[in-house]
Amino acid sequence: MTIVGVDLGGTKTAAAIVEPDGSVRYLAQIATPGADGAEAVLDAVAGLVRDVATTSGGEPVAVGVASAGTIDPASGVVLAATDAIASWAGTAVASGLSARLGVPVAVENDVAAHARGEALHGAARGQSCALMIAVGTGVGGAVLLDGEPLRGAQGAAGAIGHLPTPGAEGMRCGCGGTGHLEAIASGPALYRLYLALGGDHSVIGSRAVVERAMRGEALAASAVRMSARALGVAVAGLVAVVDPGIVVIGGGLAEAGELWWQELESAARAGLVAPARDIRIVPAALGATAAIVGAAHRVSALVASPTAVA
Amino acid sequence: MTIVGVDLGGTKTAAAIVEPDGSVRYLAQIATPGADGAEAVLDAVAGLVRDVATTSGGEPVAVGVASAGTIDPASGVVLAATDAIASWAGTAVASGLSARLGVPVAVENDVAAHARGEALHGAARGQSCALMIAVGTGVGGAVLLDGEPLRGAQGAAGAIGHLPTPGAEGMRCGCGGTGHLEAIASGPALYRLYLALGGDHSVIGSRAVVERAMRGEALAASAVRMSARALGVAVAGLVAVVDPGIVVIGGGLAEAGELWWQELESAARAGLVAPARDIRIVPAALGATAAIVGAAHRVSALVASPTAVA
Repeated sequence: MTIVGVDLGGTKTAAAIVEPDGSVRYLAQIATPGADGAEAVLDAVAGLVRDVATTSGGEPVAVGVASAGTIDPASGVVLAATDAIASWAGTAVASGLSARLGVPVAVENDVAAHARGEALHGAARGQSCALMIAVGTGVGGAVLLDGEPLRGAQGAAGAIGHLPTPGAEGMRCGCGGTGHLEAIASGPALYRLYLALGGDHSVIGSRAVVERAMRGEALAASAVRMSARALGVAVAGLVAVVDPGIVVIGGGLAEAGELWWQELESAARAGLVAPARDIRIVPAALGATAAIVGAAHRVSALVASPTAVA
Repeated sequence: MTIVGVDLGGTKTAAAIVEPDGSVRYLAQIATPGADGAEAVLDAVAGLVRDVATTSGGEPVAVGVASAGTIDPASGVVLAATDAIASWAGTAVASGLSARLGVPVAVENDVAAHARGEALHGAARGQSCALMIAVGTGVGGAVLLDGEPLRGAQGAAGAIGHLPTPGAEGMRCGCGGTGHLEAIASGPALYRLYLALGGDHSVIGSRAVVERAMRGEALAASAVRMSARALGVAVAGLVAVVDPGIVVIGGGLAEAGELWWQELESAARAGLVAPARDIRIVPAALGATAAIVGAAHRVSALVASPTAVA
């Protein structure tokens, strides 16, 4: 049974065949034509899925998609999104892809899919309750209950990037609000923080700031510390609310190195409530293909009850 | 089948017979002998349960207890608590009461029980996901999933009072930390805020501050606004994380009147993420007996599988 998993992001989209044991084969990637709008993106994703299936010598029987944005996992419609993909909000991704490919398609938020992947084969395996946080261009989260992401009333749960966070007061968030976790803890926020502290304008992007911090540049180190510390404070609060057995942190900034992790962990430890004082805070284990694995696993479970997918 | 529900608080304990339809009979109340320690409290609660049963002319077949503190709902042991009851943390409430009464006893956190009561017969009825917040001496919460409180890995979920909250920076929380929601939004916190703003020291307690605010005293109104506003900011963040279908607010301060509710609601609305912009924020419907009803309902469900209770 050929199941294709897709990780559909604002800048790039990856797809692969996912085996029942979680292994990933025939991984391929394209640039997401986000500027061309939702229909062009769906055309490109359908083409990528066909290419992956053809290369593998099979036909896809179902497609699981992990998408950027707030997704209703029941209908596969985008409820809210940034403008990384033009007019993405409102797009019926599941039915649009299913019409193009002729197979069942299930869509969910990318962090939820990533979290399910970590629950199946990664750092959250065996936990009855876990908190997954992804820190990259944005900050997203998922509360895993017996391996399944908490959905909430509208499928929008896990938007931890919009938690009001001490230290972020007045800072503009991608959602239009201010003072949210994402406004200080995301990659772009870390970079803005570096510039705001008086950093070198010839330095471009959060990765370069992290590299300078590792080499000992004081301003870069300050920006990394402030950003990581705000995330740690938020982690402590989220642990009080959710009481997870483990906190798993993934996304691009999770590779930001020791200074970022130290500040994150020390700020979290200082704020943790008594019952959770010894909770483990660990990096995600599966890397870039976790969301592909999680989304593929969901659709392969759903095809047993075809009314549940588009 | 005579089921007794108990609401065991730091200052008073109430118990009643709870009928299958959620109605409460033979309600009785005692002062909790908290200063005398855990064993004395268990003796007093067992006596209260016997008195209620005797008055009703029946024998209790099971007892459901809603207790202050962080409770492991599986074992009925107190994981963490304030010092309102001396040496309450570590107390095996379920087995201690079961040994005294000779019937199965199930114990859970009081806000979790209150939330279940609201899900069964009150403001959260029919919701697949709801957020309950209780604001009184402390600030507690429960995430209701299909009517059952989210437990977390250790049964400690819902401790929203310890969410780091903008506006509360530096303020001391009951848990020993600083900057938490409870440190600005609880009743005692509202009273401290009033005094800190220069309020009249002859005024005693948050209820009196609220009354003065309603009569137009500017300092009292400022304290009420600051406290309610911090709660509203936290509500917006919690809604982003959990995506509930409704937010239900109970506890003593939920009766603080229009000014408190207005500030709470306007701060929450200003911060809500797009998918939840129209969420309803409503007062709890059941009043003081909600926790008794919720705890009794849980134990009556558990006695069908007796290994699950002490």
